[in-house]
Amino acid sequence: MKAARLHARRDIRVEDVPEPSPGPGQVKLRNAFAGICGSDLHVYFEPELVGYGLAPHPLTGAMPPQILGHEFSGTVVELGAGVGSVRVGDRAAVYPTYSCGTCAACLAGQVNACRLIGFHGLTSDGGGMAEYTTVTADRLHVLPAEVDLRMGALVEPMAVAWHAVAKSRVRPGQAALIAGAGPIGLGLWFALRARGVERVLLSEPSAARREVARALGAVTVSPVTDDLPGAVASLTRGGGVDVAFDAAGVAPAFAAAVGSLVPGGRCVIVAMHERGLDFNPSLLVGGETELIGSLAYLPGDFVAVIAAMAAGHYHAEGWIEVAPIDDVVAAIGRLSQGQAMKILIEVA
Amino acid sequence: MKAARLHARRDIRVEDVPEPSPGPGQVKLRNAFAGICGSDLHVYFEPELVGYGLAPHPLTGAMPPQILGHEFSGTVVELGAGVGSVRVGDRAAVYPTYSCGTCAACLAGQVNACRLIGFHGLTSDGGGMAEYTTVTADRLHVLPAEVDLRMGALVEPMAVAWHAVAKSRVRPGQAALIAGAGPIGLGLWFALRARGVERVLLSEPSAARREVARALGAVTVSPVTDDLPGAVASLTRGGGVDVAFDAAGVAPAFAAAVGSLVPGGRCVIVAMHERGLDFNPSLLVGGETELIGSLAYLPGDFVAVIAAMAAGHYHAEGWIEVAPIDDVVAAIGRLSQGQAMKILIEVA
Repeated sequence: MKAARLHARRDIRVEDVPEPSPGPGQVKLRNAFAGICGSDLHVYFEPELVGYGLAPHPLTGAMPPQILGHEFSGTVVELGAGVGSVRVGDRAAVYPTYSCGTCAACLAGQVNACRLIGFHGLTSDGGGMAEYTTVTADRLHVLPAEVDLRMGALVEPMAVAWHAVAKSRVRPGQAALIAGAGPIGLGLWFALRARGVERVLLSEPSAARREVARALGAVTVSPVTDDLPGAVASLTRGGGVDVAFDAAGVAPAFAAAVGSLVPGGRCVIVAMHERGLDFNPSLLVGGETELIGSLAYLPGDFVAVIAAMAAGHYHAEGWIEVAPIDDVVAAIGRLSQGQAMKILIEVA
Repeated sequence: MKAARLHARRDIRVEDVPEPSPGPGQVKLRNAFAGICGSDLHVYFEPELVGYGLAPHPLTGAMPPQILGHEFSGTVVELGAGVGSVRVGDRAAVYPTYSCGTCAACLAGQVNACRLIGFHGLTSDGGGMAEYTTVTADRLHVLPAEVDLRMGALVEPMAVAWHAVAKSRVRPGQAALIAGAGPIGLGLWFALRARGVERVLLSEPSAARREVARALGAVTVSPVTDDLPGAVASLTRGGGVDVAFDAAGVAPAFAAAVGSLVPGGRCVIVAMHERGLDFNPSLLVGGETELIGSLAYLPGDFVAVIAAMAAGHYHAEGWIEVAPIDDVVAAIGRLSQGQAMKILIEVA
């Protein structure tokens, strides 16, 4: 079968590999769409920074070459022995993470913070950027009729954002600021709206990204050329936002998010910052505000996102492109140059 | 009556001032003990930095000279018209803060974060460092027989720490790290123990302060000469602490507190940092940890601290000194030199 495999730094090959067969408890999926994620760019351009491929993954034993694609959807085509929870023909999004089950995080139910976390499609024996893959049946989240396979490939990144919104403890009727209108920033906007948070301001320096967000219905502001504090004040009648999200990973976005909070407000960090910044912890004291880290998702976030998708809260127009698997390297190039927001590889 | 009044920078005078008389709803207290707080040192040495005395306080109209003493206890000697909640002879701790009731924080019940907050004994018409003061009766927290007036003057700083422990959402049986063994650090230790948190590590670079804490029963570690990460690992069987407290206000203490957390752990900032530090917000992402600001206290914290004092959870041995009001300037000097942990001015 055809698969996109990462062999080494800047070396992805679309090549023929053996078709997998489902073992006991597994299903075989015919993959449909697989999104390219920021993590994919990291391992493609700087595998050494993330320690990619230096040793077999402690949970999966995987080594390069690695089939990519951890944000993906597909259709069940074969059941391994003992599988009764899904049927051939079911369309599904795949929950991709592996966790050890024994570290402090896992024992506390926080499997998303497992110290050995792995991903199907990043550190495992398969992935979504291949015609087929096999996974244990418990990883499948079957899609209802209202959610197509393209949307199914977006469940994973949208779950990252949904999880962050859950961590914020926001309530319907409150006000929110999102710093950064990339895929996760848009996911935060969808999730907030789906949860009854109507007053949401999206701050983004790129005019192109603001335009995409505006076309979806978002209220946007440039933190560079507009008056961001004024926009926050106007959204909140002179107060601050109840929750803010750093989905940009740069110092000005962090400062704007923390600085826009009302007393008691909470800022969720969902972006990765490449470098440190100057921060006075006492900034949190005067208003008793909070900083909360949010990482990936839990299975319940997949369930919630799929339900919200079925209810019509998510839209792919204007920010999702689809490319054939043979164009995966070109697609990575366009993403890394900021020429596209999100690209799904169509594998079937 | 005799009172210690701050006239200007480094100018406290113990002098004769008119004795106050209780208005309607007020009580007259014969003051007993009044603690000297870090805020007192700030307004004494650097009033310009905190804007002290530049304009009448917006809630109280107070201007220098100011009678000091906002951590204080006393005995009711006279009731103003309409007071029925307390009786002459009652011994009480005084809840000192003024809040506006109309800002976003006040409207959310977070009166401790009022943007105009004032203090009786810092920005008002009286304070604890005088023979008498008058306050509205609702400010009194009557002390039970088990709590003496010296302990009563400690209710306010101990409430600061109690509030921070409440903000941490710690549960009995969890593990905690306190960075900084000053009065608030010790207050955190008392509060954690009173709430059923037995595994508490106190990190403090000063050998003298560690000795004081050890004499109270605390497990201490030097972050400079001991192996702090090793001590945390030994306390938690190789994991991290569930909650940490930055009660030091310096970069190494902050880093140690955040760095000692278990996944999902929470670090409460209760200290004021004079300067910023280098911080990568992504540090909070990997373990989904949280930073929480904690400011002052709410009335319920006074109630809880007095109950815990009555139950025997607080001790004054080894860290509390008492000085006569005539020695207030000398006492401030000793505190600013680190020659004493906490000094109560005895006014009656």
